[in-house]
Amino acid sequence: MYKHISSLQNPVIKRLLQLQEKSRARKKEGVFIVEGVREIQLAIKGGFRLKELYFAEELFPEIKVKDLVKDQEHPEITSLSAEVYNKIAYRGSTEGLLAVVITKDLGLQKLELLDKNLLILVAEAPEKPGNIGALLRTADAAKVDAILISNPKTDIFNPNIIRSSVGCVFTTKIATGTTSEIIEFLHHKKVAIYAAALQASKIYSEIDLTTSSAIVVGTEATGLSKEWLENSTQNIIIPMQGEIDSMNVSVAAGILIFEAKRQRQFK
Amino acid sequence: MYKHISSLQNPVIKRLLQLQEKSRARKKEGVFIVEGVREIQLAIKGGFRLKELYFAEELFPEIKVKDLVKDQEHPEITSLSAEVYNKIAYRGSTEGLLAVVITKDLGLQKLELLDKNLLILVAEAPEKPGNIGALLRTADAAKVDAILISNPKTDIFNPNIIRSSVGCVFTTKIATGTTSEIIEFLHHKKVAIYAAALQASKIYSEIDLTTSSAIVVGTEATGLSKEWLENSTQNIIIPMQGEIDSMNVSVAAGILIFEAKRQRQFK
Repeated sequence: MYKHISSLQNPVIKRLLQLQEKSRARKKEGVFIVEGVREIQLAIKGGFRLKELYFAEELFPEIKVKDLVKDQEHPEITSLSAEVYNKIAYRGSTEGLLAVVITKDLGLQKLELLDKNLLILVAEAPEKPGNIGALLRTADAAKVDAILISNPKTDIFNPNIIRSSVGCVFTTKIATGTTSEIIEFLHHKKVAIYAAALQASKIYSEIDLTTSSAIVVGTEATGLSKEWLENSTQNIIIPMQGEIDSMNVSVAAGILIFEAKRQRQFK
Repeated sequence: MYKHISSLQNPVIKRLLQLQEKSRARKKEGVFIVEGVREIQLAIKGGFRLKELYFAEELFPEIKVKDLVKDQEHPEITSLSAEVYNKIAYRGSTEGLLAVVITKDLGLQKLELLDKNLLILVAEAPEKPGNIGALLRTADAAKVDAILISNPKTDIFNPNIIRSSVGCVFTTKIATGTTSEIIEFLHHKKVAIYAAALQASKIYSEIDLTTSSAIVVGTEATGLSKEWLENSTQNIIIPMQGEIDSMNVSVAAGILIFEAKRQRQFK
């Protein structure tokens, strides 16, 4: 038998709601919230540690709870009434399962990488959770070695990002840092930097992307910062012929990353 | 001097709000609403006809109004108080300009195309306005000959689509139809059909996409219908190597369309 909460007045609820809504609350506790069976499984597979698990008996069978956490170090498990669960759950379609997961250190110094033929996706200051989610899905599909966020504007453990990434936030190595730190890191690792620019002399498909490469994309509003454009190995362009000289940032990243995959014969 | 509305009780306001919010109201009148200077300019350039134009004097200078509509057949022009404008405008950042635009017939029979080397993007039953907007931006950037929506689930003149397409809904030829109608249309035009599938024998980059081609993408939830998969020239796959066997639909479309562009040397 697990601890049970059925009162909406229970202080645990207020705390979980704060963790959902406030980046500051997540940072203070060093945890974040993951909803959904598949997402929690991916978090576990990605090496994250569950601190607490909440399930709504009416939606998620108690018998499955133990199996889910069998390799975890005793997370605190609590059953909730459906009413309480629905109050906390952020997603419309409720699966009845929610975990408080311990944050990982996203510092560059923690990032372990192989030494050759790296493929890295870098996004500078992305803001919209939907775009970040799509970038993470592309990173997963291409199995890039890492995704780096330079000058992050958004907490990566924001529930909207976890949701729109359909759990891909747990399947790819992620690190964050200032633009200077990431450029230095890439130089040190001997990774060529290809910065996507609206004006550039080289078409992306004319570049040899089969050796260690980082594809760098900026924001839709302002593009990449000068620092990236001036410190790249080569600035590259996706030729556009329409009325509007812009593209969705996650679409542009997908085109560039999969050109590298094509050149590498999808290996 | 133009007609002026400053009362929030004016019945025009209720009508404009209905046109913003309800597909049925748009269909009944055969019009839709476009906000923003750039978007209205693109609509005009795309051959759409303005029926009415509303501007908030405090936000948009009266002197520019005439220039904007100089090639239009006398749209009815009304000035609004900022308060009234803000009540009607759907977008957060208000530019003070809003038009009632006459819908175009999106039937396939109205679609005029060249006869060779066509590049067409087809999306089956896309739902999320954000994804449709990104598809339209990709279609614009690649200057495809047309974008076809089969079994549409959403009114393409929905304000969220216009907004997320940043006006690209006006820059590419669009037609809609049932899946059967579009397949028949493509067969008749001798356009090869390449249907994106999760299981397929051919990798997309191994296909010759330099002759008339339609790239067909389905929904993220269920993929393409049997009808497309069984009537394609070839089903194609984007090889994925991650934990999640899926990608954002507009990213997948971007990868496929720009592979065709690459093969065509971006001409």
